[in-house]
Order: sequence, then C-alpha cells, then structure tokens
Amino acid sequence: MSDQNFADRLLDAIDRKRSHVVVGLDPDLALLPPSLRSECLLDGPENPDREAVASCYRRFLGGIIDAVANDAVAVKPQIAYFETLGAPGYALYEDVVRLAQDAGLLVIADVKRGDIGSTAEAYAKAHLDLVGADALTVNPYLGTDGVEPFVARARSAGKGVFVLVKTSNPSSAEIQDMRLTSGDTVYEHVADLANRWGKGTEGARGYRSVGAVVGGTYPSQGAALRLRMPGVPLLIPGYGAQGAKAEELGGMFDAAGTGAVVNSARAILYAYRKREGAWQDAAALETREMKAALWAAAGRA
Amino acid sequence: MSDQNFADRLLDAIDRKRSHVVVGLDPDLALLPPSLRSECLLDGPENPDREAVASCYRRFLGGIIDAVANDAVAVKPQIAYFETLGAPGYALYEDVVRLAQDAGLLVIADVKRGDIGSTAEAYAKAHLDLVGADALTVNPYLGTDGVEPFVARARSAGKGVFVLVKTSNPSSAEIQDMRLTSGDTVYEHVADLANRWGKGTEGARGYRSVGAVVGGTYPSQGAALRLRMPGVPLLIPGYGAQGAKAEELGGMFDAAGTGAVVNSARAILYAYRKREGAWQDAAALETREMKAALWAAAGRA
Repeated sequence: MSDQNFADRLLDAIDRKRSHVVVGLDPDLALLPPSLRSECLLDGPENPDREAVASCYRRFLGGIIDAVANDAVAVKPQIAYFETLGAPGYALYEDVVRLAQDAGLLVIADVKRGDIGSTAEAYAKAHLDLVGADALTVNPYLGTDGVEPFVARARSAGKGVFVLVKTSNPSSAEIQDMRLTSGDTVYEHVADLANRWGKGTEGARGYRSVGAVVGGTYPSQGAALRLRMPGVPLLIPGYGAQGAKAEELGGMFDAAGTGAVVNSARAILYAYRKREGAWQDAAALETREMKAALWAAAGRA
Repeated sequence: MSDQNFADRLLDAIDRKRSHVVVGLDPDLALLPPSLRSECLLDGPENPDREAVASCYRRFLGGIIDAVANDAVAVKPQIAYFETLGAPGYALYEDVVRLAQDAGLLVIADVKRGDIGSTAEAYAKAHLDLVGADALTVNPYLGTDGVEPFVARARSAGKGVFVLVKTSNPSSAEIQDMRLTSGDTVYEHVADLANRWGKGTEGARGYRSVGAVVGGTYPSQGAALRLRMPGVPLLIPGYGAQGAKAEELGGMFDAAGTGAVVNSARAILYAYRKREGAWQDAAALETREMKAALWAAAGRA
C-alpha cells in the first residue's frame, strides 16, 4: 500500500521490470492444470463445493503470482470469475489482491463498476479502501458523478482509475463507434471526458492516474487515442486469446515507449496447454516472451 | 425460484399486490435505526468489525423485507453497499436474496454488470444461476455480446434483465443525451438496442423479460421512452430521496397502468427518521403511501 501517485508507480514499474505486461487473473475450473485439480481432489464423483474450488484457485493464483512477479508490472483480477463462487470467491478476491501486492505487483481490479454518485462512493470504499486494490476499471455510461468517487482517491490516496473507452469485444462498435453530431464517435467523446476527469491526478512523470481501457483488438483506433489522450495511461486488453499481437500495438505506446500496459489472461494462466513442463514454468515462460515482444514493439529493445 | 417468464411474474405481482413498488436495499451503517444499532452492540468504543455489521444488516433487511412483503412487488439489493463489507457483505447479499424470495418478493439484483461475452457469462452464472436473483441490471456500453449471456437466461430460465438506458443521476446527460448523426440521442439508440435484445423473451401478457432502467428524475424523457419501447418493462429509480414524485410518473406506465415499477430505497428503509413508532412500521407505512400514490398515478385507483 502506498500513497505515492499511481501513474508514477505504474511507469516506475514498467522501467524497473522492463515490462508492459499485466497478467489477467481469470480462474476457470474447466481450465485448471490437471495435476492441480488432482492435488485439490476436485475430480471426485461429486461436484466439488465452492469452498474447495476457491481453495484450489488460491493455490493456482498464488502459483501464478509467484511465477510472474518478476516479469509483470501488475495483475488484473477479473472479479466476475471470483463472483461465480459467491462469498468464498469474494474472500479469495480479497486474498489475491494481498498476495499480489506482497509479491511486488500492482493490482488493477477489473470490476467495471459504475453507478450514481452515492453508490459509486460505496464501490470506491469497497474496492479501493477496503480490498485495497491499486486501481480499478470503471464504466463511464453514467457520466462524471459516477466516476468522481474513484477519481477523488486518485487525487488523494495514490489510486488509479481506468475508464472504459473502446473495449476489445466484437460488438463494442454498437454504441462506442456511433458518430455524434460533433463529428466524434461516442468513444472519442468518452476519451475527452476521461481527459477532463484526470486533471489534477498527474504524477511527477507527467502521466495522470486516470487512464483508459482501449482494446488491443482495435490497434488503429488505439493509436489515434494514444495521440488524443497524452499523459493518460492505457490499459490494453485483448492480447493473446482475443487476438491482439505485440507488433500491432506499437502505436499505443508513447514516444518514450511507455504509458501503456497490456493484459493477457488465458494465454498466460493456461500456458501449460501449449508448453512442456510444470504449469508455473509455462506461465513464467509465456510472460517472458510477451514481455520481450512488447518491449520491442514499444521501441525499447 | 420459478422458470415462468419473468415479465409475466412481474406483471402478475403488480396486479396481485396492487403495487408498482420496488424497495431498494441500500444498507448504510450511519443510517441504521438507533434502537437496532444498540441491540447489535455497534456503538461500543471500538469500530465494529465487518462480520458484526453484516449480522446487524441481516436483522435490519430481514425486518424491512417482512414489513414490505405484502405491499412491494420486488426488492432491489444494491450490491455496492454489500461489497463495502467485503466477503461477509457478499454472503449477506446471497442471504438477502433468499430471504426476500421466501417472503414472496421478486429480487432485482442491482449490479450494473457489463463486460465482454465470456466475462458476462461468468456474471450471469454468479448472479442469476448461483445467487438466484430473478433479474439484474446491466450496463449496455459493451454492446450485444456483453448482454447476451443475461438475455439467454431470460429466454430459457425465467430470468429478467434491465438495461441501463437513461439513468437518474445529474450527469447522466454527459454521454446518454449526446446526439447522434441519426438524430437520436445515445440513450434512444440504447433503447432501440434493448428493444432488439428482448425479442424472443415475451411472456403471455405481451411484455418482454428484457426491460430498461429509466430514471424517474427525467419524466418527460421517460414518457417518450415508454412509447418507444412498447412491451419493455421499465425499472424507474430516483423516487423519494432523489426527487421523483408519483404524479410526474403517469406517462411511464402503459395504457393499462402497468409495465413499470418504481424503486425507492432510503425513503423507505430509513422512514423511521420522519415517522413515529418502530422502524419496521415506519417502512411499512411509507411503502403503503408510495403504493397508493403510484396506483393513482398509473390511473388504476
């Protein structure tokens, strides 16, 4: 836990680890390494109860965190996968945030919350104050008062916020790419709002602590957003399983090769499916390859 | 738990209870009735731990559910307030869903989730399958594939979905009211998408199980949306503490005086602050007054 500016912490971690990699934590029972399933005794005749599954996910995610701690700047727990286990899954989410921070990783809670002001305040308390994530993702549809409680903690408590601007999924165009009478698309308008929301959250290195989520599956829009949002850190999902490749993402880094981090979840977590050896080793190797590919794409290799 | 069409269940409940009232469950430590705080021993020299607070919220919300069960059609737990207690709060959320259903109330989980398809599927499993809410609120910003897993359960499992269209908060205009080159606003475009998403979820009474959230604080836009979205049930927040009044909402019901439900949270939960007597009685009285006012506004009194 640190009150230092989030953007500074993020950029420092990129330089220190020579990495732009964020590892998405999306635990999925069907994809757990068979050896671990067996150690956890999840393959008995009855469906395992959710406490048993949460306990096994804890071993799995703890192993992943240890395997990637030196080569990733952050982890991004996707809370939906934790919520599938109910309260034991929520307890696991809290534990995993602590485990990752203890391993020297930043934690970006991928919660995509967004609500009216009083409710957004409750979400900010829940995820930034109580769980203690370093940053979270927020949905902009409700406008400024749904985002302000998160931004307040970027100003005063060293927290970070990533506003959904252009998401990585196939149907993101249906609303986000609609054109306004101003000539801008909806996502460009949201980018301008995110620019405004971040004022006053700048760190010593010129970046703000209010960032933007921009899908790596849309690299040309991403490169244009990089120019439209100077000083706004980008969180880029869509790498690996969703199809984005390092060499397409060069335009989403700034001239110094920083200011953006790239998330991969399934391709790292379940790398054992394509590689020999222990699942932790497979995840570590996959992370190092991704790190090298991004370092080159950012022009720093 | 019922696999009967959600829209039919909602409209039947409105007729049977002669009510359009949804009671928002937004537990807030600072507003708990003093007598209950004292019974729960929350006023000691040290801050109460979150298990103790969750336990007291359980007594409070159980009392509210009993008090309103005959006069409300549904409750709407706002999960942000539960998440402020971490895992014990999440366990409480699960318990409260069951308590309310056992009391004959529908449960609309106000979770405003929305994500890429695979993640939306995890949220649908978490809130509709596991927790077993009858319906939930979803954020449309990601488009069709972020909504489809919820809609699938409206088609096949008797569940309901309420898509955020025009929210009740002051800054909802910043994105939602922007005008597209088509001439529509963003929220009108989202209304049209919600119309499309609901196809195939119609019940015997002509309403769909994919509804829309339309803030009661914008009654003229709400009346226009009522006409634009025939057969789409409306969930109307903003009543009471946020300022919407029954007599302004007449245009948001259909010609038969149905098709919409109205949420009030703080004005009912904490009605003891303005009324004599026990807090449960105050909540029951407030609910009955709101019920009568809405029944009249819908032209059915």
